[in-house]
Amino acid sequence: MNAIDSSTAVATAVAAVPRGLAGVVVTDTALGDVRGREGFYHYRQYSAVDLARSRGFEDVWHLMHHGRLPDAAERDAFLARTAALREAPAEIRDALPAIARASAPSGPLAGLRTALSLLGASAGMRPVYDLDAEARGADALALCALVPTLLTALHRLGRGLEPVRPREDLPYAANYLYMLTGAEPDPDRARAIERYLISTVDHGFNASTFTARVIASTGADVAAALTGAIGALSGPLHGGAPSRALDTLDAIGTPDRIRPWITERVLAGERIMGFGHPVYRTEDPRSRMLRSIAESFGGPLVELAVQVEREVVAILAELKPGRELHTNVEFYAGVVMELCGLPRQMFTPTFCAARTVGWSAHILEQSADSKIIRPAARYSGPPPPQPVPAV
Amino acid sequence: MNAIDSSTAVATAVAAVPRGLAGVVVTDTALGDVRGREGFYHYRQYSAVDLARSRGFEDVWHLMHHGRLPDAAERDAFLARTAALREAPAEIRDALPAIARASAPSGPLAGLRTALSLLGASAGMRPVYDLDAEARGADALALCALVPTLLTALHRLGRGLEPVRPREDLPYAANYLYMLTGAEPDPDRARAIERYLISTVDHGFNASTFTARVIASTGADVAAALTGAIGALSGPLHGGAPSRALDTLDAIGTPDRIRPWITERVLAGERIMGFGHPVYRTEDPRSRMLRSIAESFGGPLVELAVQVEREVVAILAELKPGRELHTNVEFYAGVVMELCGLPRQMFTPTFCAARTVGWSAHILEQSADSKIIRPAARYSGPPPPQPVPAV
Repeated sequence: MNAIDSSTAVATAVAAVPRGLAGVVVTDTALGDVRGREGFYHYRQYSAVDLARSRGFEDVWHLMHHGRLPDAAERDAFLARTAALREAPAEIRDALPAIARASAPSGPLAGLRTALSLLGASAGMRPVYDLDAEARGADALALCALVPTLLTALHRLGRGLEPVRPREDLPYAANYLYMLTGAEPDPDRARAIERYLISTVDHGFNASTFTARVIASTGADVAAALTGAIGALSGPLHGGAPSRALDTLDAIGTPDRIRPWITERVLAGERIMGFGHPVYRTEDPRSRMLRSIAESFGGPLVELAVQVEREVVAILAELKPGRELHTNVEFYAGVVMELCGLPRQMFTPTFCAARTVGWSAHILEQSADSKIIRPAARYSGPPPPQPVPAV
Repeated sequence: MNAIDSSTAVATAVAAVPRGLAGVVVTDTALGDVRGREGFYHYRQYSAVDLARSRGFEDVWHLMHHGRLPDAAERDAFLARTAALREAPAEIRDALPAIARASAPSGPLAGLRTALSLLGASAGMRPVYDLDAEARGADALALCALVPTLLTALHRLGRGLEPVRPREDLPYAANYLYMLTGAEPDPDRARAIERYLISTVDHGFNASTFTARVIASTGADVAAALTGAIGALSGPLHGGAPSRALDTLDAIGTPDRIRPWITERVLAGERIMGFGHPVYRTEDPRSRMLRSIAESFGGPLVELAVQVEREVVAILAELKPGRELHTNVEFYAGVVMELCGLPRQMFTPTFCAARTVGWSAHILEQSADSKIIRPAARYSGPPPPQPVPAV
């Protein structure tokens, strides 16, 4: 079918690699990295946690998109530019009720995948290789700016509510909460969600980011690449779900039940949701930041969470010595989103909204390379050609 | 966000690999391979061309899906089973006019991506890792069976025509042409398209197949993986377009213009669409088969195509000695589809319909492995952490 549709082209140039390409360096990136042993991750040259503490979502989006943090004037201009892109085009708005209705069995993440696919198609979005960097960037900004509009509309339509039109005068995070609830959020909650969003923009070369880059490497348009990335994110081995950790807290219920509930499950070989991470050998830096946000709100859920964390870490150290199991980002992310009034159905979609900004930066970085990502496989079946038997 | 969202996990376990992972063996597959030097490709243990010559589409689909060719009774049962899956669910049928309208600027391939995404969501399709092999297989069959229905409906709606409901009594290829035109196709055309479809079911570990497998490796559902694969296929470095080669024939117009038209372009450094392949150093086996189909129809277009092929190969051998440039699959695929009455807009979507069967087999094969595909990247930006400047 095509010029690059090859298989064993350069095959066996490289011998067998680790399963799942683990640790295989596919490309260079200037977008960031994760240092598991240090409990540290960064966006470009800045600590992601420092960014979440001291900057707004638009600053970090600008950093990922343009390669540097904006000054005050640039930030205002970037906010104005992206806020003007929040309104969904009429044909998408018209299609959202049908998408929400049909995707009810799966929820807003699958609805968003569909809506972004439709959006790219309706914009006649062109292959990244046919566009200059400016035009590719404009496509990426347009899609990222629309994600909150689409997600909140799908969520509301799914509950029989009218979508709330975006407001241009609010920053990204506050506008997101506003469109979700129809009410302007209080500043503490808006800031808490903003910090959560910043902390999840990017996190290494995970499967959804890699998917976005493989699709972009074919020259496909930005919407095609994002659509694929959302699909990868929806996988249980990837996406995770901050709501699961919260479900654990609900199931435990009261502090006195922590030890028996956890011990029973650990002894049964079950994983405790919200604990453990394959990279971090220390506390997950996202978890630490989100706990401090949760503690600034306080209340019984936070008290329970802190107590569960303390006891579970101790129980795990006892039952699984040497494993260094700590809370991961899911644990306090769920708590923070609950405190900010987000419905659980929207936890993973909210994560996805932030990650769309990271994926987009990866798509744009990948687009600067004109080499398709196309590995090889080793045929392991019976030797061909066998004669085709007659029917 | 999740348990596998790691970056430099096992990093540097493997040193730098070739750009774009070219030749890097990611996995074993029993589904097939391409042997570029021999001009040979196979599905499982059978020559793909032999299969296209002697079997029907359902046979090959059964081979890819179940691992072996069916006998006559199994074939009939498989046809009956898949034909019963052709009717789109009501909520998808209802949404198709809006999808066709909104995706008009991009065409049926982007429309199909959207419709499949919606279909997976509306079916509440579950992660492959939550399903047994039987249930995963059922999802894959359902989606593959619906692709022709969706594509032809989107095409017809885009032209202001009513979709044609599928017929269960026709095999896959004949039913596809029937839904496209509303008339039962003549047997020669149905068989020609069937052979084309068989010849494009699979072709090594190309970028869209790899995308499908990366998404499936996260445990995401079959529709999520297919949606991503369609996005990758839409990229100009991957998908190619059989219509481009036909455009070349149109531009040449008459045999006397072949030499000046081609020579001028080759000397200007332009690529001639329909010629050259990065793997095949011989004639593309798909091209050879499709030419014989085209010749069985005959007519002025075929005569021109054969003459263009002969002269261009000679001119290229003269101007680019040692390059071994032959026609690729695009060249005669376009001619065959044109002869069978397919509109050019449907050439790549038709390819996609066949390839969906190949992608699905890869998704099912990948699902048997529980290891996420997740490579690493090397951070190449300024060293972190730099202090975050105040705004």
